Amino acid sequence: MTDGEDSRPVFGRVALIGLGLIASSMGHAMKAQGLAGEIVGHAQSEASRAAALEIGFVDRVAATAAEAVAGADLVVLAVPVGAMGAVAAEIAPHLAQGATVTDVGSVKQAVIEAVAPHLPAGVHFVPSHPLAGTEQSGPRSGFATLFVNRWWLLCPAEDAAPEAVARLRRLYEGMGANVDTMEPAHHDLVLAVVSHTPHLIAYTMVGVADHLRRVSQQEVIKYSASGFRDFTRIAASDPVMWRDVFLTNKEATLDILGRFTEELFMLQRAIRMGDGQQLHDYFSRTRAIRRGIIEAGQDTAAPDFGRSKPAT
Amino acid sequence: MTDGEDSRPVFGRVALIGLGLIASSMGHAMKAQGLAGEIVGHAQSEASRAAALEIGFVDRVAATAAEAVAGADLVVLAVPVGAMGAVAAEIAPHLAQGATVTDVGSVKQAVIEAVAPHLPAGVHFVPSHPLAGTEQSGPRSGFATLFVNRWWLLCPAEDAAPEAVARLRRLYEGMGANVDTMEPAHHDLVLAVVSHTPHLIAYTMVGVADHLRRVSQQEVIKYSASGFRDFTRIAASDPVMWRDVFLTNKEATLDILGRFTEELFMLQRAIRMGDGQQLHDYFSRTRAIRRGIIEAGQDTAAPDFGRSKPAT
Repeated sequence: MTDGEDSRPVFGRVALIGLGLIASSMGHAMKAQGLAGEIVGHAQSEASRAAALEIGFVDRVAATAAEAVAGADLVVLAVPVGAMGAVAAEIAPHLAQGATVTDVGSVKQAVIEAVAPHLPAGVHFVPSHPLAGTEQSGPRSGFATLFVNRWWLLCPAEDAAPEAVARLRRLYEGMGANVDTMEPAHHDLVLAVVSHTPHLIAYTMVGVADHLRRVSQQEVIKYSASGFRDFTRIAASDPVMWRDVFLTNKEATLDILGRFTEELFMLQRAIRMGDGQQLHDYFSRTRAIRRGIIEAGQDTAAPDFGRSKPAT
Repeated sequence: MTDGEDSRPVFGRVALIGLGLIASSMGHAMKAQGLAGEIVGHAQSEASRAAALEIGFVDRVAATAAEAVAGADLVVLAVPVGAMGAVAAEIAPHLAQGATVTDVGSVKQAVIEAVAPHLPAGVHFVPSHPLAGTEQSGPRSGFATLFVNRWWLLCPAEDAAPEAVARLRRLYEGMGANVDTMEPAHHDLVLAVVSHTPHLIAYTMVGVADHLRRVSQQEVIKYSASGFRDFTRIAASDPVMWRDVFLTNKEATLDILGRFTEELFMLQRAIRMGDGQQLHDYFSRTRAIRRGIIEAGQDTAAPDFGRSKPAT
């Protein structure tokens, strides 16, 4: 890592396959920090390709993924998890020898199973996952600081070249991220806890409110500042991305969901039986985790997320 | 309402019983807008009374609730829901004729049942609930703009004097709130949907993460930006307040919890069966509610709640 402080780009040509929130933020961040010699983008939608060019987080676009990866030193698969296998099959014959391929999917075991078999020898596959995002999607939702102080997990295969892993780490650190490596199975379990199950629960709570007849949707919207609105943010995330997450991280999500309903039933019973002590004890313990998150710099300490106060 | 544009205080003397987030914010807001002639505060804890005086959102404090309400035109009960009845019994003999008594509890039927029987004739009881708050608590957590553009619900008894209701409405509108009236039973159902059940679910999800052995608390904290941290905010709310909410809004909370687990099991089954279409359709519908909340001015449109980006 002798060039760690070097100002040369970390990769010569980078191909972004998929031009949504993560890819567009990567494009912005690489341009802001001078991390890539040239950025080529591809998305299935012509409108997305045009938007990427217009915004300028890519230098050029290609009409096919195969064309985009030709001559690229780094290929980033930034499509929904369920589409990774097909994209890998399409690009495989066009990958340059010595190129690094990564992905930014929220699930790792399923992506590795879908992608790895297609990749030729001499290509370094280093699956990754940035724990960053917003509820918005598409090429216009990206911004250069999305990854700053966020974790970016690498799940390299045991036979991945250490230089390729180190180079990708430098790219992500150059975008401001903290980088950890993790076993794919453990990644999928951790993410089921901190991301996948919370998203499913938020979607469900918002769905329940949507279905109720005795409380109008107008009331739900007007009175949402009392807690509900926090759930609607993550329940506004991209439906295709999340469908694929649950279909491909099935085992870990069902495991954590089972634990969640067990605990929920215990608290539900405490409510029914009027066991105030049990409720109080449970609610007291959870405060400590919030403090830990703020101390670790993973959320703002400002009350109510520091949401700006509307003008009087 | 001939004095709607008047600059005189809406109430001469206001007594705040309880000096937590809501009462301290009311004190700040009334002072900022000149809505009260004098503000007297009482809390059981001597430290809270000293803090209130030092911060200055009250003009003076009283060592007992009975003393605080003497001569007050408006008495605000701002204690946990489970403590309302005992406070009402204590203050009842000391209330001035013609005084208005309100409360700011998150549950309305149980508070009315606990408080109303104690109040003497000639006192106007107008229960209320501001749909505003943060995850912080105590006398140091309040601020003058907490109620701006938030809803404040009134649940006046049918025999409440219209002038008393109108006067309280003017006070709350003077703090920047939007005011609606609602039947107590409907209030409790609506709040079970938009606040109480979401809080219980958030507490549960955080508790599940806390109990897992295979994923360390350190990992949960580090990787929380992927969704989980949103849950930890509301799961950091005051345990006593929330214990009382669930114990006193039992029926509506259990009703909505039942619907929640039904829907969750349906989605869990869709995951198990690999039914991507059902997941996608469900996740698509919930986006509309988020849009409604932003259009109604009840949350920021900024991605990720506009949380400030940490410095590089």
